[in-house]
Amino acid sequence: MNKTLIKDALIITLDYNQPDYFYGDILVCEDTIEKITNHPEEIDKKRADQVIDGSNLMIMPGLVNTHGHAAMSILRGYADDLPLKKWLETKIWPIEAMLESDDVYWGAMLSIAEMIKGGTTTFTDMYYYMDRVAEASAESGIRAVLSRGMLGLDFDLEKEFEDTETLINDWHGAKNGRIKVMLGPHSAYVGGSDFLGRVYDLASETGLPIQVHLAETRDEVDGCRSEQGCSSTAMLSKIGILDFKVVAAHCVHLSDDDIDILADKKVGVSHNPGSNLKLGSGIAPIKRLLDRGIKVGLGTDGAASNNNLDMIEEMRLAALISKGATMDPTVVNAKTALLMAAPMGADILGLEETGILKPGYKADIIGLRRNRLHLTPLHDPLAHLVYASAAADVSLVMVDGRLLLEDGALKTLDEEKIRAEASHRAERLVNAGKDNK
Amino acid sequence: MNKTLIKDALIITLDYNQPDYFYGDILVCEDTIEKITNHPEEIDKKRADQVIDGSNLMIMPGLVNTHGHAAMSILRGYADDLPLKKWLETKIWPIEAMLESDDVYWGAMLSIAEMIKGGTTTFTDMYYYMDRVAEASAESGIRAVLSRGMLGLDFDLEKEFEDTETLINDWHGAKNGRIKVMLGPHSAYVGGSDFLGRVYDLASETGLPIQVHLAETRDEVDGCRSEQGCSSTAMLSKIGILDFKVVAAHCVHLSDDDIDILADKKVGVSHNPGSNLKLGSGIAPIKRLLDRGIKVGLGTDGAASNNNLDMIEEMRLAALISKGATMDPTVVNAKTALLMAAPMGADILGLEETGILKPGYKADIIGLRRNRLHLTPLHDPLAHLVYASAAADVSLVMVDGRLLLEDGALKTLDEEKIRAEASHRAERLVNAGKDNK
Repeated sequence: MNKTLIKDALIITLDYNQPDYFYGDILVCEDTIEKITNHPEEIDKKRADQVIDGSNLMIMPGLVNTHGHAAMSILRGYADDLPLKKWLETKIWPIEAMLESDDVYWGAMLSIAEMIKGGTTTFTDMYYYMDRVAEASAESGIRAVLSRGMLGLDFDLEKEFEDTETLINDWHGAKNGRIKVMLGPHSAYVGGSDFLGRVYDLASETGLPIQVHLAETRDEVDGCRSEQGCSSTAMLSKIGILDFKVVAAHCVHLSDDDIDILADKKVGVSHNPGSNLKLGSGIAPIKRLLDRGIKVGLGTDGAASNNNLDMIEEMRLAALISKGATMDPTVVNAKTALLMAAPMGADILGLEETGILKPGYKADIIGLRRNRLHLTPLHDPLAHLVYASAAADVSLVMVDGRLLLEDGALKTLDEEKIRAEASHRAERLVNAGKDNK
Repeated sequence: MNKTLIKDALIITLDYNQPDYFYGDILVCEDTIEKITNHPEEIDKKRADQVIDGSNLMIMPGLVNTHGHAAMSILRGYADDLPLKKWLETKIWPIEAMLESDDVYWGAMLSIAEMIKGGTTTFTDMYYYMDRVAEASAESGIRAVLSRGMLGLDFDLEKEFEDTETLINDWHGAKNGRIKVMLGPHSAYVGGSDFLGRVYDLASETGLPIQVHLAETRDEVDGCRSEQGCSSTAMLSKIGILDFKVVAAHCVHLSDDDIDILADKKVGVSHNPGSNLKLGSGIAPIKRLLDRGIKVGLGTDGAASNNNLDMIEEMRLAALISKGATMDPTVVNAKTALLMAAPMGADILGLEETGILKPGYKADIIGLRRNRLHLTPLHDPLAHLVYASAAADVSLVMVDGRLLLEDGALKTLDEEKIRAEASHRAERLVNAGKDNK
């Protein structure tokens, strides 16, 4: 049994039954946390195969990215500052139509490497060629919850369901349960009339959770009201989709009735503040959601609309914009932002094994260097994590008990090769785009 | 004549007469930019005493932080998520009352070191013991625009003006013009009845610019209206303060009439998005200000309300929250955010020597590593700087032709000593605070 000891660290467990932080040791056995204690003498050091000095680290649960499109990092900075319709129709969709399976593999690799370096231990994906994202996830060691994005348009409908079923068969539960599959219908507003009905049937049959974009823009909500006579939230509820375990991404434009529905149906919300701001979608009513007891996780969305995959930045943005928009500095405090970034994120994805540091949980652990100018003096570690720290402070990342980042260096991935391959694929795409014009 | 050559770099000059970016070389002679060219053969390499390889760097003008209270970094994370009144009255003011001159020196040093590492080459300060901040600025090599904060309350009035005059005599124009002094009346709403009149007289006499907090909170504006019968902006205008060169910090709550006044009087605005969000002050109407031709720079404010001094983060926040609040993704595009972070910032501070890269300008130059996962692929360097980069990407900082940061390491300051001294001073303050209870 391989044992790793992280000693003399400042530990933030995010477990409700523990103090906010304390100094102590963590013993990891294989893929699992065996013991956490502020009485180091309780752990026999000789039992550890490997000892990590945590004396300069803040140790916390790995961050959980609850919404994204990993392969889109290949389009990072390709189109910015444009109206949404023009951005999609003249830039994103034409280039996405040319994406090959290898583009998705290297785009996902680029994203996974960036996410690991920034302290993300679990990510969620919704895109095409999802088998290649599963491959990249398996190779990297990151925890992944993957869905084959389904637009539900007639010309591609059968392939989308076929791909989804293949993905479930090949990957759900793979790699020691580190890779899981969800169903990924795009939204209430794309897709043919019987599409969501088929999603309902597949969810009933497989018991798998669903992720879906919801109430992202005012246009979506207004359009649904004028065409269907109800909000997109009410529509999903009527079809029965919300009777399953659902992660609804964005949720910017919600009426009181919509919030009632989300609360009643125990829908989890993935809040994507960076993307919502950058695309001009608006500011989600997070305080109102939390006040109703709705669980809210955080997501980066894709790097074409963010433009990085920095969960610490999303955590900070979530706290800041809720305060700014409500003009109340007590809203979404540091502890709440941390809970959203890890335990609530794991909860809405249905992952019972990660999100807090506690014996019996998977060893998904990150460490941030605290001997930093911008983290000095150390009045309050939780405030520092949310309001002052940066992705570059992350120096240690462990998933399933395996070290993926040590002293800030990737252990399972070749950073230079990934950058070169992703750049090469991006260049090919842009040139192909020019040739098509 | 000492000459430094930065070669083979991706160069972003932020000069209106130049393309957004190009690849080339920069020759620095003593404290000044001598030549910038995309025809490297035009520069005789043999003339350079020092050659810096820029092939992995994005080179741009140093960032200009137009509002802050450097010494407050000693209170970073000391009090967060509180209502403004409680934050000030129970936390910030009591501990500030115990501040000693050495606290301010080491707090300023901590901030200056952090700012240099994040690419800030010019900072602005408003606080007490400003002679000690000037000392820290002189030692570090950073460019500084300093003001002795003046509340204008009777018990301290004479000392505030004396300190200001001493500061002007001792420091204005010192260190090759690298340190300048402004007048620093706190705001329209603090201070006795003849206070702003005396500031007016001193500005007339010295010709120095003024910095002042303006329209930061709704309470300020409402209070001024009920007590004075007009907004704080109108009040400053009536007294004549806005007839001088003025930097107005925050400007969150402005009526159309207020914006007319700021435009007519050519007042420069220091936008502090991070602080405004965190304190729940609100979101400043930056699009409306820019549309009226008002110059807007960026500021971090103090680290007790931010909680870092990361100008790249402020640049990103400025772009994102303007898009989010107006629900228009085209507002404050990447180029505009960059202009706010350097040339417009220098402009509102009255610094004609910095803010763009151009022959004859001071060599205030920064370089960010671009061989980074989160900056891959390189579709658009300007978008990357604003939407994806991080303070930790800054590896080169030059002010007045002198290298302050090389390969990410401070050249003029002892980082470990600064962290230790600042931590020690912070501990002393907190303990003294406890003893007082």
